[in-house]
Amino acid sequence: MRLVRYGRPGKEKPGLFDEEGRLRDLSGVIADIDASVLSDRALRKIAKIDYKTLPLVRGERRFGVPVKGSGKFIGIGMNYADHAAETGAPVPKEPIFFMKAITCLSGPDDPIVLPKGSKKTDWEVELGVVIGTRAQYVDEADALKYVAGYCVVNDVSEREFQFERGSQWDKGKGCDTFGPVGPFLVTRDEIFDVQDLDLYLELNGKRMQTGNTKNMVFTVAQIVSYVSRFMTLEPGDIICTGTPPGVGLGRTPQRFLKKGDKLRLGIAGLGEQQQEVVAYPKA
Amino acid sequence: MRLVRYGRPGKEKPGLFDEEGRLRDLSGVIADIDASVLSDRALRKIAKIDYKTLPLVRGERRFGVPVKGSGKFIGIGMNYADHAAETGAPVPKEPIFFMKAITCLSGPDDPIVLPKGSKKTDWEVELGVVIGTRAQYVDEADALKYVAGYCVVNDVSEREFQFERGSQWDKGKGCDTFGPVGPFLVTRDEIFDVQDLDLYLELNGKRMQTGNTKNMVFTVAQIVSYVSRFMTLEPGDIICTGTPPGVGLGRTPQRFLKKGDKLRLGIAGLGEQQQEVVAYPKA
Repeated sequence: MRLVRYGRPGKEKPGLFDEEGRLRDLSGVIADIDASVLSDRALRKIAKIDYKTLPLVRGERRFGVPVKGSGKFIGIGMNYADHAAETGAPVPKEPIFFMKAITCLSGPDDPIVLPKGSKKTDWEVELGVVIGTRAQYVDEADALKYVAGYCVVNDVSEREFQFERGSQWDKGKGCDTFGPVGPFLVTRDEIFDVQDLDLYLELNGKRMQTGNTKNMVFTVAQIVSYVSRFMTLEPGDIICTGTPPGVGLGRTPQRFLKKGDKLRLGIAGLGEQQQEVVAYPKA
Repeated sequence: MRLVRYGRPGKEKPGLFDEEGRLRDLSGVIADIDASVLSDRALRKIAKIDYKTLPLVRGERRFGVPVKGSGKFIGIGMNYADHAAETGAPVPKEPIFFMKAITCLSGPDDPIVLPKGSKKTDWEVELGVVIGTRAQYVDEADALKYVAGYCVVNDVSEREFQFERGSQWDKGKGCDTFGPVGPFLVTRDEIFDVQDLDLYLELNGKRMQTGNTKNMVFTVAQIVSYVSRFMTLEPGDIICTGTPPGVGLGRTPQRFLKKGDKLRLGIAGLGEQQQEVVAYPKA
């Protein structure tokens, strides 16, 4: 299933895209797409509904983050060897993770707001993993069973805040609007091989990032297993799994986001995001 | 007011300690101590209640985290110059912050569970700040107005995970049970000078940490103002503000927590925590 949350910020309703690509309203069936509907069992129940019985939704609309109430938003660093190289970092021996403030979660097409004083706001297209079942010390072989599904994430990052204001990356990762997620939460069963998905990102129509999840240093299963040794993962938690090369920091000359810039990014089968960059305060 | 949440894990009820030090039930007045009751206005409303009308609560009891539903749990690093020195780090030029996973939140007297394979779990008594009002780019002069109150936090840290498994401290800061908070949320109006509070921590009856918040590198007001430039702080968010010297990492020889160890820690006017250290899985 391709699950979505659509409507105005804070007023989103649950929906799904049917086989013909039409948006249908799920609000008569479930209250929202949150931790309570992300287990395999709960998702199977939704999948059994004859989608033709669900009302069609028509007209212009906005999408929100496709899961509500995420408790944790975790990022994996330097998980593509060629991206590590472009930032001057070694390929990690074990996953590096950091945390994005949940207040940075943002709809997939909502504007990216440059923080006050920001000179180095950068883009990062990433595969997002949404946890479906509580996971604590899970083995790699079982790890994907704890995943509800996948989504596109732009792991927006302020490089000066991340690297030049102390040692801890969180400072540049959690600014408001730095976490566009969606539009779809595509359930796990729909993805044939999560380690063979094409990713791309364009800035003002020009291709900046091109990658494939087969080039990850650590696979999704390894990441879920690894992180679950350091904290309990809960339904609704989101992990973004690292970015392929082509970020602004790694270019010569470096290129960071400016007011008016337009981003388009996506992952095969998981949909596309489009963001405009605006200055603080948001217009 | 000294607000608490008492009862079994996940079933806590709101309460307060009255002027005679007796626990009284607030559940007839408010549903819980959460974001909705942390503004100055909401807290004033509770303060106006004649506490004698609230039922007394008697008998043995457990305390939970004194605020429910925190979205963010932020830690400040190296905020006492003598603690920075004992860990071999320079005194920071601006606040360093990291994030503790909210799943590590734990009652003030709940056991500390050593993660699997942990050899370097350490203690850190800290002043906790609970945000009362949404704060975004707030000035230092106004910053304390956004604070609901203060509490004791043990910023439990696994030093191998924090320092020897990559560069990002979050890995050693967010393990389950690594965030005992409470027992009290003491409202801001009760603290005459938040920059003059004594802190202490004992391990098995022996004093390990002795400090005073006057020795912070960055004051609470500076911290709240600073963090609010990198993310929006929301009611219920908790910031722990750094630890004074005397952690296990800084001792000669180093001393880390073992099964059966007992911690007692507190801050003048904010109450005391007592934790026993247990192995995973929790007995």
